Amino acid sequence: MNNVWTDLAIEARDMYTKENKRELDGVIVDEEFEDDIKITTVTIESDEAGEELGKPKGNYITIDFPEITHYDGETMDKVSKVVDNVLVRLIDAPEEKTALVVGLGNWNVTPDALGPRVTEKIMVTRHLKQVMPDAIDDSVRPVCCISPGVLGITGIETGEVIKGLVERVKPDFVICIDALGSRKLERVNRTIQISDSGISPGAGVGNHRMKINEESLGVKVIAIGVPTVVHAATIANDTIDLVIDELSRQAKSGTEFYKMLSSMDRMEKNNLIREILNPSFGDLMVTPKEVDTVVESLSKVIANGINMAIQPNLDMEDINKFMN
Amino acid sequence: MNNVWTDLAIEARDMYTKENKRELDGVIVDEEFEDDIKITTVTIESDEAGEELGKPKGNYITIDFPEITHYDGETMDKVSKVVDNVLVRLIDAPEEKTALVVGLGNWNVTPDALGPRVTEKIMVTRHLKQVMPDAIDDSVRPVCCISPGVLGITGIETGEVIKGLVERVKPDFVICIDALGSRKLERVNRTIQISDSGISPGAGVGNHRMKINEESLGVKVIAIGVPTVVHAATIANDTIDLVIDELSRQAKSGTEFYKMLSSMDRMEKNNLIREILNPSFGDLMVTPKEVDTVVESLSKVIANGINMAIQPNLDMEDINKFMN
Amino acid sequence: MNNVWTDLAIEARDMYTKENKRELDGVIVDEEFEDDIKITTVTIESDEAGEELGKPKGNYITIDFPEITHYDGETMDKVSKVVDNVLVRLIDAPEEKTALVVGLGNWNVTPDALGPRVTEKIMVTRHLKQVMPDAIDDSVRPVCCISPGVLGITGIETGEVIKGLVERVKPDFVICIDALGSRKLERVNRTIQISDSGISPGAGVGNHRMKINEESLGVKVIAIGVPTVVHAATIANDTIDLVIDELSRQAKSGTEFYKMLSSMDRMEKNNLIREILNPSFGDLMVTPKEVDTVVESLSKVIANGINMAIQPNLDMEDINKFMN
Amino acid sequence: MNNVWTDLAIEARDMYTKENKRELDGVIVDEEFEDDIKITTVTIESDEAGEELGKPKGNYITIDFPEITHYDGETMDKVSKVVDNVLVRLIDAPEEKTALVVGLGNWNVTPDALGPRVTEKIMVTRHLKQVMPDAIDDSVRPVCCISPGVLGITGIETGEVIKGLVERVKPDFVICIDALGSRKLERVNRTIQISDSGISPGAGVGNHRMKINEESLGVKVIAIGVPTVVHAATIANDTIDLVIDELSRQAKSGTEFYKMLSSMDRMEKNNLIREILNPSFGDLMVTPKEVDTVVESLSKVIANGINMAIQPNLDMEDINKFMN
Repeated sequence: MNNVWTDLAIEARDMYTKENKRELDGVIVDEEFEDDIKITTVTIESDEAGEELGKPKGNYITIDFPEITHYDGETMDKVSKVVDNVLVRLIDAPEEKTALVVGLGNWNVTPDALGPRVTEKIMVTRHLKQVMPDAIDDSVRPVCCISPGVLGITGIETGEVIKGLVERVKPDFVICIDALGSRKLERVNRTIQISDSGISPGAGVGNHRMKINEESLGVKVIAIGVPTVVHAATIANDTIDLVIDELSRQAKSGTEFYKMLSSMDRMEKNNLIREILNPSFGDLMVTPKEVDTVVESLSKVIANGINMAIQPNLDMEDINKFMN
Repeated sequence: MNNVWTDLAIEARDMYTKENKRELDGVIVDEEFEDDIKITTVTIESDEAGEELGKPKGNYITIDFPEITHYDGETMDKVSKVVDNVLVRLIDAPEEKTALVVGLGNWNVTPDALGPRVTEKIMVTRHLKQVMPDAIDDSVRPVCCISPGVLGITGIETGEVIKGLVERVKPDFVICIDALGSRKLERVNRTIQISDSGISPGAGVGNHRMKINEESLGVKVIAIGVPTVVHAATIANDTIDLVIDELSRQAKSGTEFYKMLSSMDRMEKNNLIREILNPSFGDLMVTPKEVDTVVESLSKVIANGINMAIQPNLDMEDINKFMN
Repeated sequence: MNNVWTDLAIEARDMYTKENKRELDGVIVDEEFEDDIKITTVTIESDEAGEELGKPKGNYITIDFPEITHYDGETMDKVSKVVDNVLVRLIDAPEEKTALVVGLGNWNVTPDALGPRVTEKIMVTRHLKQVMPDAIDDSVRPVCCISPGVLGITGIETGEVIKGLVERVKPDFVICIDALGSRKLERVNRTIQISDSGISPGAGVGNHRMKINEESLGVKVIAIGVPTVVHAATIANDTIDLVIDELSRQAKSGTEFYKMLSSMDRMEKNNLIREILNPSFGDLMVTPKEVDTVVESLSKVIANGINMAIQPNLDMEDINKFMN
Repeated sequence: MNNVWTDLAIEARDMYTKENKRELDGVIVDEEFEDDIKITTVTIESDEAGEELGKPKGNYITIDFPEITHYDGETMDKVSKVVDNVLVRLIDAPEEKTALVVGLGNWNVTPDALGPRVTEKIMVTRHLKQVMPDAIDDSVRPVCCISPGVLGITGIETGEVIKGLVERVKPDFVICIDALGSRKLERVNRTIQISDSGISPGAGVGNHRMKINEESLGVKVIAIGVPTVVHAATIANDTIDLVIDELSRQAKSGTEFYKMLSSMDRMEKNNLIREILNPSFGDLMVTPKEVDTVVESLSKVIANGINMAIQPNLDMEDINKFMN
């Protein structure tokens, strides 16, 4: 999976299924539709299946939606509602339990700024319940949030900052938002993955080495991610595959040429990719030009979904009033 | 001290001395000059003296300098050097000991953004020593930093965020930078206070309720502050005093009028101030129009001073190279 | 009017009326209420009246509203609707006419950032009508916008930038948004002034020396301003007045003391104020601590009002969809 | 040149030379070295040559330097000095002539923010010469600057904003800074192109359709650009070429297979690329993860070079003092 990195469980599963022509044991897949929004739940039930797919055991709910544009607030609202529904199911904690919302990523790099942009839009209430308890109804959940920055800015592993905070603040659950890397361009900025298995160390836009999950933090961790980039190596890899497929289609089966194409192995491909991406193999990301407006739109969609899910006793209008 | 709030120990001491015509017991004051920069050390030796002045026991070094302008990089360098010297004395920790630099305050409010602006300019090395130890010389101190935001943004007391982080990262000392409130306009943006007694809960620009000091964090805490505002109540208070002084000078001693002026008490003054500042008594700050450029300049001066002090084996040129 | 600067016509008129116990000739005042929102129209009909009040001839509509808080989206919507109504009356241009929206002020200084924050939220359509005419309905007005920065950032008078742009783009009308200075704290962040007389050179937060009005630009100019600061000199002035009033109340009429109080003249007051505000007389502003959230809220209120007014064929929902 | 877009004249020339095994008529190339910095001047002398290369007639000086890292302030200073030297030659205007510096690009998209980041660091003096002539020496050139934003933000063509401004301010020359697209990854963030032929409408990061050059503005225009991205189509194109080259090397000349490889034409390649980059063909950019720190470093290098070049009577120390 070297050259085709994905942070999405659904893509890891799709690659396995395509290669092996069957579902992996220990993996259950369920699909639903909400108009033109597709909701796929990939449940990884065993550690072996998790290892095979490179994702820890758990539930991964993927929300695929049509491109969100400047002109389509209706689709945005529908996606927020789906995010709300999925989160409510995963959170499952009474309204007096405290939520900590964490925006991962680097606010200085547009495609990595999704997490911090979401936290700016979260309805923060924990301090109000302490400072002016009368102003806030009992039915409002205490919510706090932080954007801890990235290793290069702070010199501290993101996981360490969060671990320290969780030990002090003792939230009942944590919601992390992060920008991800997908293996397919068509998913970039069109997919939201929500999972209860935390954030694994990976090759998203940033690099969060220390795992952020229930095991490391001691409380439930829900991770929300959106692929905002594809790694350049993936583009190069796919291009090679496509060229070889194309040539294979043209070549007569059994010829020397056909054999040569079939025998092109991973090592050879890796060398070609390295040559193309030299000198920065592995650190190049592919992202659309209009990434700023898309990240802003997506951060609203996700923040709305989170706000509704963690404040079940408020409707969108109450939340908007509060946020202004 | 209601209407004349100050975060500066030197001003609290000056007010005491003016009122009582003598130095407070348990307070030692020492003055030095470095060209046109004045360095005053106020040492509060007893808890009683601390209580009287409203500042905890400890050393408070105040650096007063001429206005820093666009055109005077030389003065800026001299002030940085003084900050460096003062810090080196207070830190007194071998170069392998880890430093945590904390930028307090709200990055969205210009006069409160000093702390976050300083941390942006700190040479962060802690992660490099872990990730690529060969690239970094042993003589470089591990340094990390954070701007935790304010209560209204995160819903978490700043002190809690820092306490949690200190417990995880285990730095050997902490340097906090914060914007302060002074009682005199002439000190605004022209004074740096450095102390080893931490940051007390106060009425600076923000409100950091939980004490951030050696007692609460378990490691040495050095606080660096610059008054960037004066409270509006202080302006009103001073105006009243000045008017009464002026009238008293004109009145004949012993007349009814003179008596009336002398008998104007604190309660009466408070009522007048409340009337003027209504409806926002206590939450109004006075700050110069060009606060953005001044805060930027001061954050450079302080960051340079900190970088030199915590990296005694590097000179300014090494640090600049690193930071670019 | 030295020490009590105001950018608000209504305050200039109120000061005149208070001092002279009558309305100024050439000034007409009309008041309406919309629930708890007060709408006052001050019409300055003659150049003489304008000179007396320090404001050019024209209509000044002042919208006074209760404090806008985090918790009151309903009031915000009502204020936006009033802004919309007032603007529609002043604009009076068919929907195919082009609007240029200009955000004046310095985005680096929170209380001066109102204008730039409004332009970020304006529905910009002019380019879409050129680039993809099919996507945009004929009933949508072409709108463009700019935040030209301030003299200290660009080295160019704001008026010059706008004049140059107007000559190229040839809009049919211009809407300018700026942060203002009021003479009363109770108006800060609670008043919106809309006028058809342009922006006069003044002492708001920034300093825009070249007039921006129909005469200088050649097209109709509508100015929207919110006082976000009071000048420190105004606070000092008011304090002096209050102290003298208070003492006068206590003194017996006819005594030497009473005479002294009555004879305290403007020169004397100015000297006192200068002494208090030294060294920065004239450049100090008083603003609430939570200026960041208030400016953000007000920028939404105003942007919503503008968007509705310049797009009469769209409702708020259409506009929100477009803006996401 | 569809799939291998470049904004760099040197790359367009290299592609021509490689394909045609000779220099294009009307093109003169000169190379110099300054330590490890390579300075290549491509002079396009005829309109025909310009058309062939897709670049207007003029001088294009390309500065190629080793990767600039956090740790190498020395190289940064050397590159700034080279930028200074090249600019001085192109500007050739006495010190009393006014300069307008324009930062093109979208400040919200990190790889496109180079221009705005440079203008923030330019020593702006034009207003000082007007407002406080005594403070500024006669030997200081009047300099003003602006970052006009992009079409999507303002609804106005960047060229229109600049044209309007030039007509008002009447500068003697204009320096534009923009982020570019190169065709080779190894040039990304390692090359500065300076030319006297203006900015052509192109496919850099943004899209500036109206030409910004001496012809359109009526004054000399010097353009400074740095490639911060490569288009994804270029990566795909290069990958295809590399795979075919590789297979060709392995195939025996004359075989059917060899012929098939040789006959793969541009149309076929384009279709493959479209398939890979679907659905966003043409709008995808490839950029390194650490783009934020690199753009910041490069903006310093370029701003220093510009400041030195336009202020020949000041040294770097004077400029730094002024800028703080």
